[in-house]
Amino acid sequence: MSADHGTAGGGFTAIVLAAGKGTRMRSERPKVLHALANRSMLGHVLAAVQEAGAQQLAVVVEPGRADVADEVARMAPGASTHPQAERLGTAHAVLAARAAIEGSQADVLVAFGDTPLITAQTYARLRAPLREGAAVAVLAFEARDPTGYGRVLTEGGRVVAIREEKDASADERAVRLSNAGLMALSGEHALSLLTRIGNDNANREYYLTDAVALAVADGLPVTVVDVAEDEALGVNDRVQLSVAEAAIQARLRRAAQLGGATLVAPETVFLSADTVLGRDVTVEPHCVFGPGVVIGDGCTIRAFSHLHDSRLMAGADIGPHVRLRGGAVLEAGVHLGNFVEVKNATLHAGAKASHLTYLGDAEVGAGANIGAGTITCNYDGVSKHKTVIGAGAFIGSNSALVAPVNIGDGALIGAGSVITRDVPADALALARGRQTTREGAAKVLRQTLKAAKAAKND
Amino acid sequence: MSADHGTAGGGFTAIVLAAGKGTRMRSERPKVLHALANRSMLGHVLAAVQEAGAQQLAVVVEPGRADVADEVARMAPGASTHPQAERLGTAHAVLAARAAIEGSQADVLVAFGDTPLITAQTYARLRAPLREGAAVAVLAFEARDPTGYGRVLTEGGRVVAIREEKDASADERAVRLSNAGLMALSGEHALSLLTRIGNDNANREYYLTDAVALAVADGLPVTVVDVAEDEALGVNDRVQLSVAEAAIQARLRRAAQLGGATLVAPETVFLSADTVLGRDVTVEPHCVFGPGVVIGDGCTIRAFSHLHDSRLMAGADIGPHVRLRGGAVLEAGVHLGNFVEVKNATLHAGAKASHLTYLGDAEVGAGANIGAGTITCNYDGVSKHKTVIGAGAFIGSNSALVAPVNIGDGALIGAGSVITRDVPADALALARGRQTTREGAAKVLRQTLKAAKAAKND
Amino acid sequence: MSADHGTAGGGFTAIVLAAGKGTRMRSERPKVLHALANRSMLGHVLAAVQEAGAQQLAVVVEPGRADVADEVARMAPGASTHPQAERLGTAHAVLAARAAIEGSQADVLVAFGDTPLITAQTYARLRAPLREGAAVAVLAFEARDPTGYGRVLTEGGRVVAIREEKDASADERAVRLSNAGLMALSGEHALSLLTRIGNDNANREYYLTDAVALAVADGLPVTVVDVAEDEALGVNDRVQLSVAEAAIQARLRRAAQLGGATLVAPETVFLSADTVLGRDVTVEPHCVFGPGVVIGDGCTIRAFSHLHDSRLMAGADIGPHVRLRGGAVLEAGVHLGNFVEVKNATLHAGAKASHLTYLGDAEVGAGANIGAGTITCNYDGVSKHKTVIGAGAFIGSNSALVAPVNIGDGALIGAGSVITRDVPADALALARGRQTTREGAAKVLRQTLKAAKAAKND
Repeated sequence: MSADHGTAGGGFTAIVLAAGKGTRMRSERPKVLHALANRSMLGHVLAAVQEAGAQQLAVVVEPGRADVADEVARMAPGASTHPQAERLGTAHAVLAARAAIEGSQADVLVAFGDTPLITAQTYARLRAPLREGAAVAVLAFEARDPTGYGRVLTEGGRVVAIREEKDASADERAVRLSNAGLMALSGEHALSLLTRIGNDNANREYYLTDAVALAVADGLPVTVVDVAEDEALGVNDRVQLSVAEAAIQARLRRAAQLGGATLVAPETVFLSADTVLGRDVTVEPHCVFGPGVVIGDGCTIRAFSHLHDSRLMAGADIGPHVRLRGGAVLEAGVHLGNFVEVKNATLHAGAKASHLTYLGDAEVGAGANIGAGTITCNYDGVSKHKTVIGAGAFIGSNSALVAPVNIGDGALIGAGSVITRDVPADALALARGRQTTREGAAKVLRQTLKAAKAAKND
Repeated sequence: MSADHGTAGGGFTAIVLAAGKGTRMRSERPKVLHALANRSMLGHVLAAVQEAGAQQLAVVVEPGRADVADEVARMAPGASTHPQAERLGTAHAVLAARAAIEGSQADVLVAFGDTPLITAQTYARLRAPLREGAAVAVLAFEARDPTGYGRVLTEGGRVVAIREEKDASADERAVRLSNAGLMALSGEHALSLLTRIGNDNANREYYLTDAVALAVADGLPVTVVDVAEDEALGVNDRVQLSVAEAAIQARLRRAAQLGGATLVAPETVFLSADTVLGRDVTVEPHCVFGPGVVIGDGCTIRAFSHLHDSRLMAGADIGPHVRLRGGAVLEAGVHLGNFVEVKNATLHAGAKASHLTYLGDAEVGAGANIGAGTITCNYDGVSKHKTVIGAGAFIGSNSALVAPVNIGDGALIGAGSVITRDVPADALALARGRQTTREGAAKVLRQTLKAAKAAKND
Repeated sequence: MSADHGTAGGGFTAIVLAAGKGTRMRSERPKVLHALANRSMLGHVLAAVQEAGAQQLAVVVEPGRADVADEVARMAPGASTHPQAERLGTAHAVLAARAAIEGSQADVLVAFGDTPLITAQTYARLRAPLREGAAVAVLAFEARDPTGYGRVLTEGGRVVAIREEKDASADERAVRLSNAGLMALSGEHALSLLTRIGNDNANREYYLTDAVALAVADGLPVTVVDVAEDEALGVNDRVQLSVAEAAIQARLRRAAQLGGATLVAPETVFLSADTVLGRDVTVEPHCVFGPGVVIGDGCTIRAFSHLHDSRLMAGADIGPHVRLRGGAVLEAGVHLGNFVEVKNATLHAGAKASHLTYLGDAEVGAGANIGAGTITCNYDGVSKHKTVIGAGAFIGSNSALVAPVNIGDGALIGAGSVITRDVPADALALARGRQTTREGAAKVLRQTLKAAKAAKND
């Protein structure tokens, strides 16, 4: 867990509510596993609270969802998970993780797995007032249209109530400061407040928000922490999911640009949460970066390229229409042209494959030239095999290299060959039919074919 | 004609004005045939008025435009067309369809072929007041900037006049409620009003709007029906055409998302008016759906895919960079990878073609594996022929299958083969040259080529 | 230099400041050479001032930057360049080009190489007041938020001062009219004003803005010329660079649309400053036009196409997924389909290459049909060679044409052939292996491969 934010005052316990049904997603997949920038919403929340200084992490999950538990284990290895058997409100959900609160005097921060845009900085700001004496801190935003939100009512900087729309006076309805739902509770008071929350309301649910009224009644200080409305976005359907995706993309693109990468049309480039772009990288319009991509300084990624789990060293130039399917390592000065796919292959410095090529399970030597239409036949229907091409080798166009096979340094493969046996260094290999030309035969054949067609159509 | 809206009170006659010249489109094509979401603007209007309950449809067209008449016949089979020989104003245009009004007591709704965003709901709302006693209903919008529009003046909910900009007082100019041009007239009064409209104005034209003044003078009730300004957009040039396209796309994308499809970047996905996306479909950025595409539940469409008239069953996974050219049927679990084109071909469950392949006029059996670079040679220069590949067959990379040809179940084709004759089930077929390797020959050849180049450049 | 704007009153001298460091670009490349619509920012400025009527052009550059000098020579052949050795403020930079001012009585217009959106019309408007007696004209915009800008204070239409934020009274801070930095000075007063500017300020720099105070003190008329804030955008980092790119693209797209081209989704189409689109051209979503592209009337460019330095004649239809790499000439009715690359090749009327093809250094005759997977093998590892294909020829799928080679008119190449020798007109050529089929062998081979795999995994 990194220490950029908030840990100055010691760690805290984050309770992440991730058991929501997400009916409006209309999906077989749990809502919190839907992804933004190729990382689940839950993953974004777990990463942010850890970056904010959470030292203990408790995730409240739907019972029996191994997929959610797996994601927790992957994104936050030390976290505990707590099944929420019944769904009786947010306070009830938090108390599903009661074990994580009881065993500690640490402050408690409650986060939501479907509110994925909250940054580590905001989590740290939400927790900060507790270290200056607040018992509770609530996150709130100035709503463009507050209709339907609980209004956060303050006096002299302190929260006096959170008023639900239906209970609000006309004056209170004019307040635009709205409850975002997230809350931090001091270690001293958290359990006392949470366990006293009742369900005396129309839905018979236990609402976390009621902790505010209890704290105020106890005379404890309650503070409000502001956040931009867009950052507080909760995702309930796939339209909101795409709005959140756009927000995350805007952050990632801006960071890449300010770091020295030119995105000609940033609105058409889709990055993953972990994409790394070096300085003086140029990305043309319409590129998609899957997870695990690292691009070195001065590389050019041309339009319509689709990259996944691959590494480009300084000065590589790829695309347009390149697909790196995973495990591609392109050394300095490598060039890949249009309609080229590379999977699990290393291309050493200056190697070139300019068109219509598939390089899979391969190693290509420095300066080798792979002709148009070359295919590494890496699969025999049962197993995958490797192709090794030596430095300075020249593979003629439309060749098939049947793996396992080695092409030596400086070897030359004639166009259209099917290479099934190793070729020594500096050797010339051909494996193709000999040309036979029959004069006038095309004319005759055309007439025959036309006559056959006419007869058929009669 | 569907009955979702408005037919409760009986059908009506829709008159669609589609004779406009569209000079500012700068096009050889009639304006109303320019398309949005791969359906003509006229087609959108005809679909919407039918959905709103129109039982009789009359389309006023430019004389001699067979292409417009064809589109009418295609989109609204029972509709009549009425040539407008002279262009003397909107009321004159409506009366080109006088025959459709005279023969009926039905209410009349006037729609415009170049106002393509008006929904069926809005058409139904425009007609509704007639069933509550109104003689005329006019469609109007609150203009962000009303300059240039006719202002709709009301008193106690009734329209008293439509005032043109040039005739308006300062107070009237402050009115933002603006005439959208569309109108509904009660069956009882329609013909009487329309035929009394004169052309005593600067342009000597007959304006449909003048029906309002006539009705008011007769003491008949005239009602205004509101519409959003963006929905009332009229298309006069290609900038406005693209604005309308964006509006239609936004509707289609939103409906797909709320139905349970993830569009990672909806702003980069282009749907057709008839595209069907199932639940838990994922569409990566940058995809284009032509007409006639149906995608089953759980399918994944990766970036840069271009689909046309094709059907994917549950769980198919295609792209990136796939092109379905028409007539593709992909059964459950089919996988197509990058740079693969399929045309008029069925791939049975679990078949795979992962790279650089063309499958045209083909049938591919369940679980068959089509190697990289495989091409079905379906055209002999005169006719098209079919390729049949059996279940579990394995087609080695870079193979050419010269149709008509049958590859049996479980057959294996060696890489780089040109297959011209049928291959029985479980047989192995090869058709390629034998490899010859000449040691050291590459080195010699390179020297020769370099010497030749140097000599040439001397 | 064209004469559309401003030359009515005689030419003027433009001084373009292009020596900025651009640290926030985080780039090895000088800031003014970063590109918009494939033309450097400096190139945009040089083109606009020339179009506005500049007859003498002086560019102030960082010493020793040959790349900037080259760009000046390319975009404005007659321009002089003036190294700015020390960086002591904008007035000091202008005086680096003192020689260009001294030798002439012409008016002086100062432009900035990193303010690339200013149009020729705006430059002409900025200079115009000088011809009606103004000594100085300053360009200014109504800022949405003027914080940080110098406010332009006026009285009775004349500028009385430009007040920096820190020196402004509360009333002056409320002024939103902000200094854009660009200035025109009359030939009579320019040198006198510029040379009297001092550096008596916190940074010890010579500020061009101070020319205003000097002119006002002299009782000379100073005029303000307005410009939209967005047009006055200065580019200091790559986020601003992409904002400027978007603005340029919006202009180019709009012009193309109003000229009669349909851009289905203009926001996804990227044009170059010199792209020419004819009437009734349709461009599908997601296309990229590099420099030097001319598209004739009625052409269709389908999605995911990437064009560079190529010419399409009326009615050509290409894509989706086409790449024209440079030097492609496509005559009327040519069709290119998916995953086709053309480089330095002419396709005569009606020729077709529908899939997975590379045509490089080639000439293709009228009506020829190039089968899927055809590759012109134009490179032998040392030199490039040409392929000539005759009219009406038919190249079977998956063929390799090893250049230099001639295929005669009407010739037919069998699928999968490697053609190394010329083929006469109407001849049929084959160069491929003969098919051998071994019954049952696939089954045996599969069992052997599986056994081998099992043994390996033991």
